Amino acid sequence: MSLIVVGSVAYDGVTTPHGKIDRMLGGAATYIALAASYFTPVKIVAVVGDDFAQEDVDLLKSRHIDLDGMERVAGGKTFFWAGVYSADMNERTTLRTDLNVFAGFNPRLPESYRSAPYLLLGNIQPALQKSVRAQMNSVKLAGGDTMNYWINDFRAQLLETIREWDFLLINDSEARLLSGEHNLRRAAAKILGMGPHTLVIKRGEFGAVLFRRDGHFIAPGYLLEDVFDPTGAGDCFAGGFIGYLAGRGVEVLNGEINIAELRKAVIYGSVMGSFCCEKFGVDRFRTLTREEMEARYREFQNCTAF
Amino acid sequence: MSLIVVGSVAYDGVTTPHGKIDRMLGGAATYIALAASYFTPVKIVAVVGDDFAQEDVDLLKSRHIDLDGMERVAGGKTFFWAGVYSADMNERTTLRTDLNVFAGFNPRLPESYRSAPYLLLGNIQPALQKSVRAQMNSVKLAGGDTMNYWINDFRAQLLETIREWDFLLINDSEARLLSGEHNLRRAAAKILGMGPHTLVIKRGEFGAVLFRRDGHFIAPGYLLEDVFDPTGAGDCFAGGFIGYLAGRGVEVLNGEINIAELRKAVIYGSVMGSFCCEKFGVDRFRTLTREEMEARYREFQNCTAF
Repeated sequence: MSLIVVGSVAYDGVTTPHGKIDRMLGGAATYIALAASYFTPVKIVAVVGDDFAQEDVDLLKSRHIDLDGMERVAGGKTFFWAGVYSADMNERTTLRTDLNVFAGFNPRLPESYRSAPYLLLGNIQPALQKSVRAQMNSVKLAGGDTMNYWINDFRAQLLETIREWDFLLINDSEARLLSGEHNLRRAAAKILGMGPHTLVIKRGEFGAVLFRRDGHFIAPGYLLEDVFDPTGAGDCFAGGFIGYLAGRGVEVLNGEINIAELRKAVIYGSVMGSFCCEKFGVDRFRTLTREEMEARYREFQNCTAF
Repeated sequence: MSLIVVGSVAYDGVTTPHGKIDRMLGGAATYIALAASYFTPVKIVAVVGDDFAQEDVDLLKSRHIDLDGMERVAGGKTFFWAGVYSADMNERTTLRTDLNVFAGFNPRLPESYRSAPYLLLGNIQPALQKSVRAQMNSVKLAGGDTMNYWINDFRAQLLETIREWDFLLINDSEARLLSGEHNLRRAAAKILGMGPHTLVIKRGEFGAVLFRRDGHFIAPGYLLEDVFDPTGAGDCFAGGFIGYLAGRGVEVLNGEINIAELRKAVIYGSVMGSFCCEKFGVDRFRTLTREEMEARYREFQNCTAF
């Protein structure tokens, strides 16, 4: 079933120990949409400038991603970010952030988007996330991401926004900041009191933990032999997670949700995040096949079963 | 089947955010032996001074641990270590190391130990580990631990020693140092070329990975709500791992070993390591029951199955 993905579509300049790319397609919504597109039809809500290249439009279209909600600002330039990764790729330093047209992003959903049943809100200002939710007719599952900046400086707005969400996908440091608890289990318990019934805490190379009131599920990180570029891995995780759930039509019925499907969604999120790191930017998604995904899913089964 | 455990028996002074204990029973061999004693009969090889308290002897004896190989040096003092943990307990600073009688430790196995089929060599000088191995008649499985100091300054001796081992249990930073590879999978491949057919890389709160030439198994860290004192957790992991294998009589036959049992051993190692952190020092092992262990093993199953 259709999934709406809201967030940044951008150009990135990335330097890793494996090389340097001055300008390539990036942005949270791009990664989320590409990853999710392997599971379900995706519709993007975003803004770009008139420098947005036809070949990038073509890539998104080749994955059958609906771009009716991608506004193109005449005379504007697309969001640009540049950063460099440390030798072990566990840290990155931002070199440049040109918001450009993204500074004025005010997401408006085309009529054709409003009755989509699934919604993934990428990391943008919480009030904008809330306004998107309000434009939808009704959704089976809605949720998204946030970041330190919104947690620190837009806390009230953020709490009001996530109160309406089914799920929240954040990393461990964000979970600690949002909850004020260092311990992951305590942090999760507090966040599950803020609205979402489902919380996924991403732990980078160490995988992810799915928390619900009645228990948790721990997924390992895939042990890659070469990490070329970790940019977008967390967003691809989100795309795989919600994409799988949308593809399977998972929803909350009488306050219950299929836990087995949620667990599989976390593994598919991990699968997509792991592929993302294998090449620069979105390049892995130019060739990735469903067969490769299923083989990696089975690898996750093999390396965790006992 | 009987397991020989060689290493330090010590007194520790530990400060964590939860409190401070000036002097309590510690040492790698102590933790390994206590954890392993839940699975199999254990015989300790160690050295203590005449300050070693009867109540500590009594604790070890209450777990049916054979102390015939624990030398007591008249007029000597037991190894003492003191350290303080950071607020998040991910780092620790050594405040004091008094080797005392441990400086002259030259492990000699009583006759009654020599035909034991399982051997766990705690972190001591590699030449001493090798000499212990040479004193054994024949073993089904032998292996152990090491540390940065031996890897850096006693490399040739260490390589000669581990060449004879079935398994090596080290943490991720030691694996990187030993192999010269940052990537865990590449590091493991190199180390598996040094002799051991089985490698367990411990990742602290993120669990452990079992590597063999034909594949790997990833075990998550148990998500504790309160970590009182992480001292000894890695040694308890080792004790649970080898203790389980010894208790089940697992061995290499025609170059093959039971992989399912190895995986379970990693989980029992994780179970014992997690319990260790719940109280100061060895205190959790004063009350721990087999039923609690089995319940936690099932928790590991529940939080990893998909």
